[in-house]
Amino acid sequence: MTKVLIDCDPGIDDAMALALAAGAPGLELVGVTTVGGNADLAVTTRNALALREFLDLGDVPVAPGSPGALLHPVVRADHVHGPTGLGDAVLPEPVRAAADGHAVDLIIDTLRAAPGEVTLIAIGPLTNLALAVRKEPRVVEWARDLVIMGGSWTRGNHNPAAEFNMLADPEAAAIVFESGWTVRMLGLDVTLTAVITAEVLDRMRPLGRLAELLVPAATAYGTVTADAGPAVHDACAVAYAMDPTLVTMTPAVVNVETRGEYTRGMTVVDFRTDGRAPNALVGTRLEVGRFWDAVLAAYGRLAERLG
Amino acid sequence: MTKVLIDCDPGIDDAMALALAAGAPGLELVGVTTVGGNADLAVTTRNALALREFLDLGDVPVAPGSPGALLHPVVRADHVHGPTGLGDAVLPEPVRAAADGHAVDLIIDTLRAAPGEVTLIAIGPLTNLALAVRKEPRVVEWARDLVIMGGSWTRGNHNPAAEFNMLADPEAAAIVFESGWTVRMLGLDVTLTAVITAEVLDRMRPLGRLAELLVPAATAYGTVTADAGPAVHDACAVAYAMDPTLVTMTPAVVNVETRGEYTRGMTVVDFRTDGRAPNALVGTRLEVGRFWDAVLAAYGRLAERLG
Amino acid sequence: MTKVLIDCDPGIDDAMALALAAGAPGLELVGVTTVGGNADLAVTTRNALALREFLDLGDVPVAPGSPGALLHPVVRADHVHGPTGLGDAVLPEPVRAAADGHAVDLIIDTLRAAPGEVTLIAIGPLTNLALAVRKEPRVVEWARDLVIMGGSWTRGNHNPAAEFNMLADPEAAAIVFESGWTVRMLGLDVTLTAVITAEVLDRMRPLGRLAELLVPAATAYGTVTADAGPAVHDACAVAYAMDPTLVTMTPAVVNVETRGEYTRGMTVVDFRTDGRAPNALVGTRLEVGRFWDAVLAAYGRLAERLG
Amino acid sequence: MTKVLIDCDPGIDDAMALALAAGAPGLELVGVTTVGGNADLAVTTRNALALREFLDLGDVPVAPGSPGALLHPVVRADHVHGPTGLGDAVLPEPVRAAADGHAVDLIIDTLRAAPGEVTLIAIGPLTNLALAVRKEPRVVEWARDLVIMGGSWTRGNHNPAAEFNMLADPEAAAIVFESGWTVRMLGLDVTLTAVITAEVLDRMRPLGRLAELLVPAATAYGTVTADAGPAVHDACAVAYAMDPTLVTMTPAVVNVETRGEYTRGMTVVDFRTDGRAPNALVGTRLEVGRFWDAVLAAYGRLAERLG
Repeated sequence: MTKVLIDCDPGIDDAMALALAAGAPGLELVGVTTVGGNADLAVTTRNALALREFLDLGDVPVAPGSPGALLHPVVRADHVHGPTGLGDAVLPEPVRAAADGHAVDLIIDTLRAAPGEVTLIAIGPLTNLALAVRKEPRVVEWARDLVIMGGSWTRGNHNPAAEFNMLADPEAAAIVFESGWTVRMLGLDVTLTAVITAEVLDRMRPLGRLAELLVPAATAYGTVTADAGPAVHDACAVAYAMDPTLVTMTPAVVNVETRGEYTRGMTVVDFRTDGRAPNALVGTRLEVGRFWDAVLAAYGRLAERLG
Repeated sequence: MTKVLIDCDPGIDDAMALALAAGAPGLELVGVTTVGGNADLAVTTRNALALREFLDLGDVPVAPGSPGALLHPVVRADHVHGPTGLGDAVLPEPVRAAADGHAVDLIIDTLRAAPGEVTLIAIGPLTNLALAVRKEPRVVEWARDLVIMGGSWTRGNHNPAAEFNMLADPEAAAIVFESGWTVRMLGLDVTLTAVITAEVLDRMRPLGRLAELLVPAATAYGTVTADAGPAVHDACAVAYAMDPTLVTMTPAVVNVETRGEYTRGMTVVDFRTDGRAPNALVGTRLEVGRFWDAVLAAYGRLAERLG
Repeated sequence: MTKVLIDCDPGIDDAMALALAAGAPGLELVGVTTVGGNADLAVTTRNALALREFLDLGDVPVAPGSPGALLHPVVRADHVHGPTGLGDAVLPEPVRAAADGHAVDLIIDTLRAAPGEVTLIAIGPLTNLALAVRKEPRVVEWARDLVIMGGSWTRGNHNPAAEFNMLADPEAAAIVFESGWTVRMLGLDVTLTAVITAEVLDRMRPLGRLAELLVPAATAYGTVTADAGPAVHDACAVAYAMDPTLVTMTPAVVNVETRGEYTRGMTVVDFRTDGRAPNALVGTRLEVGRFWDAVLAAYGRLAERLG
Repeated sequence: MTKVLIDCDPGIDDAMALALAAGAPGLELVGVTTVGGNADLAVTTRNALALREFLDLGDVPVAPGSPGALLHPVVRADHVHGPTGLGDAVLPEPVRAAADGHAVDLIIDTLRAAPGEVTLIAIGPLTNLALAVRKEPRVVEWARDLVIMGGSWTRGNHNPAAEFNMLADPEAAAIVFESGWTVRMLGLDVTLTAVITAEVLDRMRPLGRLAELLVPAATAYGTVTADAGPAVHDACAVAYAMDPTLVTMTPAVVNVETRGEYTRGMTVVDFRTDGRAPNALVGTRLEVGRFWDAVLAAYGRLAERLG
């Protein structure tokens, strides 16, 4: 079992990613931290708490973190994820409160307690991770792996240059990429191939209570057709942690642009490392068929548990 | 007949582009201006003069222009184009000298003399054009069209973000894109599909004297195989001026990044214009088969003339 | 009594500032946090611990914080403060260890425990403060006042544009100035007038054990003459907290430049607020005579206590 | 006699500077070029032409140049110089037209015709000079000296960091400072000491026709009192060309900031050259009494001529 701590901003595809972590055979979810991103921190934290109960995650601690970016004003993706942050899915209000501490400390303490054992999965803006690295630089050694959903090596989604999670906090992203670990980066180039087609949706429908989350989330998020649909960006990061053979990873030197006039938040991915040590493995191809098989199998396992 | 003035830095593919302009049925070459880029200005000017004679361009004026970028130190592409700037092709020393004036004035005077008639084709760094626009802003109205080889809407060649011609003078490129005309941009995304395969090379070999330029240039420039080979970037711009149906052009707002730490010289191409007036038509697809047919036909016409 | 928490990087003038806080009649030192700056964090923390014992500060907690800047490589001032960070002053190795927690948490917890009561005095790079603000934004409301030594409204010392503390972490400084409190800024313009002349040094000599710290520190730090000598930058911030009438403070809008090529870390001070709410009170004049009288009186009180 | 070519944007103090050049015993005005700055190019050119006739400058060619900055949108100082650009002074409409050529070519041709003999005096934004350097790099060798009014080594006037002429075209200023000549820089630090006090104004009043220009210009420009009044920035540059002993010049390395968020257009003046070759002599002190004596003597000579 690989322990995973997920830093997220639920968010529709965050919810799908958490569900995947809950159902994945080889993963043990040991912590959830929240960040402002797809929606305000209060909303993303509320959603994380609601998902803990809806997905029956037990005592996994949920700790709220940074409301906004390290340096500059906050970019939100409310127009994508709706006012609740979860599209049309309606979850019961959570009963239990968040953990006492701060996300940054939950990250640091969880990694310190089990050096080499916990994989960090970050699927929102990287503010919490950057703060954790700056507060306790040894998290870089303690982490087993770091997997992020963010960036791209071709084009962005929020604008031609930048992907949303990176643009939401470019300085934090720069800190994370420069900190000495090998960032496993699942960017738009692969996540945009992980789309919910009509066939995928049909395979979600019979999943009982879990379908009540997945189906309205998926359909609120984008139009589903025979060969197109909304991309489940964040789930790709969890799927990679679950089964690294699902993605081709190419070594690269990745720099995050923080100063450009038109390119802030761009992940500049150089595959010609020319003797420089790569600081990232960049996803360049997702095996889409196997991806959905693995994801739907995990959802199936979870659905059985949830009834 | 469309009058064309070509601003260039020969350069192997510049030579191929000039040959194309010389042979193209609908084009009349009315001026050649040079700029430092692929090689030093002295070399690019010498090559332009040698090509005028080798290609039998008659009295077309050749005027030298800017040795380096508007603002910052010069980037060269000597490693690609060799010390002569023309790969292994050896041209006789030119007999006739350059025009007296400066490239910037030749551009301005040529356009002023025939408003609405002359298409500018820029296949090197945009320094001369930027200086022309700043010295005489009306060139923007006077030009029939502006076609450039440069930039890309996905990735660069000199680094992950920037194409060589744009990186060589980002401020000049920014001036040109912001000046009010509709830039026809042939970027790497299309020019990298215009490669000299073994079959194309075979069609060049019988072209007599012209083959003495084309063949060694092509083979020095990159490895030629059955389905790959060096790209004739600059020739794409001339080919588009010759026959606009060879390229799919998509309207876009293009900004040139001048301030980024990792992204200087990037052409940030936004196809979502969202009500903004596009300042560019960006090449998104080249009809490769028809392109080579048209290019080789033009080369054939020229070869007949040259013997 | 005003409670003060001092964030520092001792550092010669930091030592003098801590001694001043220890002797100041109206101040109660409730915490010391350290940051890498004048020297490495290990050195500045060791010095803070040694000073706690040498200055007899009792149980005041000392917590180590950030080793380096938020974003970019570390700038050090070793050439000014020597390898020990304290010039020629030699302090006994400290006996007691640092507090368990992190500087950022000591700052947050101290302010939370006594809202409106604790004045923060920051005399090193602002990394810890920036992290505290981002981890717990309410520190801005909880602080009674924030006094910093840093910046200038005319010229820098590390280069023509930037003062050392600001240059050492421009992004942190930008965060601190943009966070909503009124920064009391003691910049070079005033601190460079607070110099240890021969007369001042003579008044320090009779201070018993305390003189063993002050005199070698002062003389290692710069040449002392009748009308010139080293400036005690950091002591100005503590002196202002002790007696705000020592400094003329002018309202201003202060922005910290983070992107300039030659101006990173510059505090751009605009006294023409033009209807904008000032975010700072900027020291524009120090009453030098009264300053030294007050400082030396405080040193005298402390010296009596220390023997 | 020193030949001088003045590049200007009249502008009240430009008018005073031209009058000074006309009356200065050792100067021979050989050309006037205009640039958009204090007012639009059409206005500054009209004013230069009107001044040529009003000041009886004979056949000195006046050539219009750049309407705006090299790169970015135009900053104007209309609020200072009024709609006519000359405050309350009213000059007759000029009879004779501008020269045929462009300012950039007049600068190049004038310097080429007399290498080592012509001093360039630039008292507006540096756009024309930058374009001249880029079009013909040898102007740097051909110029006898380059004197500019612009920048500062302490604070700006348009904002805390930047002086107006530099802010109006930072990229042009950067080009000029990096081109290899030794820029004689008269910045705000000296020009703000050259103020028209009541006593100076009284010495202007008896100057006949010339007073009709000087007095209303001066009084429209700022309030004149016994010890304060408007500064004649541009006249300082001409005065220095007339008599270099009027100003203390300190060698420095000057860089112009082009990328800062709050510091664009700042001249970053480093007097600690540390082995680097200075690229500028920066005015650090004006002998104000001797300055006004020299200026008023020159005005007196001109006034006699004008009647």
